[in-house]
Amino acid sequence: MKTSRTPPIITLTTDFGLSNHYVGVMKGVILGICPAAQIIDITHEIPAYNILAGAYAIQQASGFFPAETIHIVVIDPGVGTNRRGLLADSRDQYFIAPDNGVLSFILGSNPSAVIRELTNSDLWLKRVSSTFHGRDIFAPVAAAIAAGTVKPKDAGARVEAPILLESTQPHETHPAGTWHGAVLSTDRFGNIITNFPQESFAALPERAFEIDLGTGVARRKTQRFRTTFGDAKPSELFAYFGSSGFIELAINQASAAARLGVSAGSPVTLRWTSRG
Amino acid sequence: MKTSRTPPIITLTTDFGLSNHYVGVMKGVILGICPAAQIIDITHEIPAYNILAGAYAIQQASGFFPAETIHIVVIDPGVGTNRRGLLADSRDQYFIAPDNGVLSFILGSNPSAVIRELTNSDLWLKRVSSTFHGRDIFAPVAAAIAAGTVKPKDAGARVEAPILLESTQPHETHPAGTWHGAVLSTDRFGNIITNFPQESFAALPERAFEIDLGTGVARRKTQRFRTTFGDAKPSELFAYFGSSGFIELAINQASAAARLGVSAGSPVTLRWTSRG
Amino acid sequence: MKTSRTPPIITLTTDFGLSNHYVGVMKGVILGICPAAQIIDITHEIPAYNILAGAYAIQQASGFFPAETIHIVVIDPGVGTNRRGLLADSRDQYFIAPDNGVLSFILGSNPSAVIRELTNSDLWLKRVSSTFHGRDIFAPVAAAIAAGTVKPKDAGARVEAPILLESTQPHETHPAGTWHGAVLSTDRFGNIITNFPQESFAALPERAFEIDLGTGVARRKTQRFRTTFGDAKPSELFAYFGSSGFIELAINQASAAARLGVSAGSPVTLRWTSRG
Repeated sequence: MKTSRTPPIITLTTDFGLSNHYVGVMKGVILGICPAAQIIDITHEIPAYNILAGAYAIQQASGFFPAETIHIVVIDPGVGTNRRGLLADSRDQYFIAPDNGVLSFILGSNPSAVIRELTNSDLWLKRVSSTFHGRDIFAPVAAAIAAGTVKPKDAGARVEAPILLESTQPHETHPAGTWHGAVLSTDRFGNIITNFPQESFAALPERAFEIDLGTGVARRKTQRFRTTFGDAKPSELFAYFGSSGFIELAINQASAAARLGVSAGSPVTLRWTSRG
Repeated sequence: MKTSRTPPIITLTTDFGLSNHYVGVMKGVILGICPAAQIIDITHEIPAYNILAGAYAIQQASGFFPAETIHIVVIDPGVGTNRRGLLADSRDQYFIAPDNGVLSFILGSNPSAVIRELTNSDLWLKRVSSTFHGRDIFAPVAAAIAAGTVKPKDAGARVEAPILLESTQPHETHPAGTWHGAVLSTDRFGNIITNFPQESFAALPERAFEIDLGTGVARRKTQRFRTTFGDAKPSELFAYFGSSGFIELAINQASAAARLGVSAGSPVTLRWTSRG
Repeated sequence: MKTSRTPPIITLTTDFGLSNHYVGVMKGVILGICPAAQIIDITHEIPAYNILAGAYAIQQASGFFPAETIHIVVIDPGVGTNRRGLLADSRDQYFIAPDNGVLSFILGSNPSAVIRELTNSDLWLKRVSSTFHGRDIFAPVAAAIAAGTVKPKDAGARVEAPILLESTQPHETHPAGTWHGAVLSTDRFGNIITNFPQESFAALPERAFEIDLGTGVARRKTQRFRTTFGDAKPSELFAYFGSSGFIELAINQASAAARLGVSAGSPVTLRWTSRG
């Protein structure tokens, strides 16, 4: 795979956290097979088992990496069951992950991706545990491809129909004009990233709308769109187009996520209150 | 810039946290431009928007890196406004940061630093967001300089008068002998690092003093200097000369920061109680 | 030490956390001496001063790294006292750490390890603080060995009798069949890793037993062994053989560590309730 002398890049996205040796161990396995690898952490703080949040993170990050980058994504509540492991070749990058929807954004937007099931156990560690396929299967397969000693097609046979989460895209309900979506992520500043794509909701700045999220006493609605944080009044909840490509929500100088009690997976409703 | 084959070093200091893909994305941008870069995290847990804490971290870290290291520092509450982006050449290292005081220790101590404003948008990502200049401007400029394809002078024209925080240095009030400073940082062990430089307060071990910090019921004073932690009695608050070059405060076997409720930015007063 | 062009690997395991510049500074020191080093974080979230948890982390991680890897382990409550610094050569890898038991698993299982005391101060930073030997001693020694400019034997003279923790191994009490052990680690999913080696307690799946841990109202016992998480009933505490090589305890879909209030160092008792 590598023709130049450029170090191959392997990224890691997991829900392992950083308080244990799990991530370090995966890197040891990789470097044992491909000593020159540039190993980059996307994040290891995906909420435990939160497949949607992992799908969002790798969707956001992968586009900023060069061609031939190999992305390992391990949010894997089904490890040890018969869920498949996948190697997907999409837009000149590789994605190695369990087949549980964590590649929904990557594969759902690219019908020409080539997907293989990881079946060639010659590439795996000799002892495969039932709880840590990131270390035992995903890392060594990624490293072998990065090292150029193995071709992607040698990882396993082509398969179809990867699992795609339904929750990646908002859907419209009757009467028309009301859309049901979800929170993809919240960040350290308390900003809330929804799954409403900016390109599909480009009218937001000009058209009357109401966004509704949070539950119980923390439920809030907003009809405000702001171009920049500086335009917002103190304590007001507002929608804006952030760096994610999705509609985001914030409270100026405060944590919107904390005030509204929302996190990855929480429902969001957007209703057009005027005709488009 | 690079004449040897040594991999160029780029460090990152931010308040992004590690729970999102933000830091990983910056690394992807860097590696797309400079694949051989050694990218080193200083910390991403600077308290959100805390410019003083960021200024302290890069001051502490940069001196331990080799010449030609490029430091990116992104604590950037003014992103999207007209605050300038800077590239500073100081003591054989480069610093890329918003012009908001986060380079106060670096530039305040070096009047011969060469400072440029980042104006050459040819070096930036094609689409620059209003919220993520770390990814869109700072990372690609750093990577282009690291790769040697661009010279620092091509990043933008020289400018003067970078913003310097007043709070980096303690000041004396009337009557003489009372100094007002601030907490620069607290660490995981609860140690409190003040902005009182050891070299300016070298008399501390021999001269009578009183340090006063914390608020309300958690307010505490100490007149004790200890050379090592082993000399301290249980539960006593004491001052010492730590590895930071500043006066530090600790409670043996307990978290001084938690007990006194202080964090980066909290005020500290030092009063000489005998003549020097 | 390096004969090939493969980048030397240095790993870091500490209790420094990631909220300060401490880890970044160690990396700066390393790269100043050995610019090509691959520096890998095992974890920096070892509970503060918890030597047993650090000993467990490096034991778990090191076996997955290639030969000639240099592991720096800094859980160092005695820094600044006269505790020794060690360089151990064990099973084709190097370990640099304070002599306080943090290498107990590595050295306790390998009587032929070659151990040296770090006494050659020519290899250290010129100014050695009394609080940060990770930066001032351990990092530069590791980097000099990684760079090949110094041989391990030049770091200091051979010594014997490194400190080994007693708590690494469970011990049997009278009457026979009752074993007293400890929690080595808990992970983000709330799984509890004990210090009962699977190989010594291989009978667990077939023989009647009772494991007892937690204190006060959170004390719990279990007589259940499960092969996979899928076999467990909701809310039941069960023992299993995990990826660590030690007996682990979990509650399906919940945090066992939180429910039982245990953490690294907490006692665990295993009692055989039938004859083996």
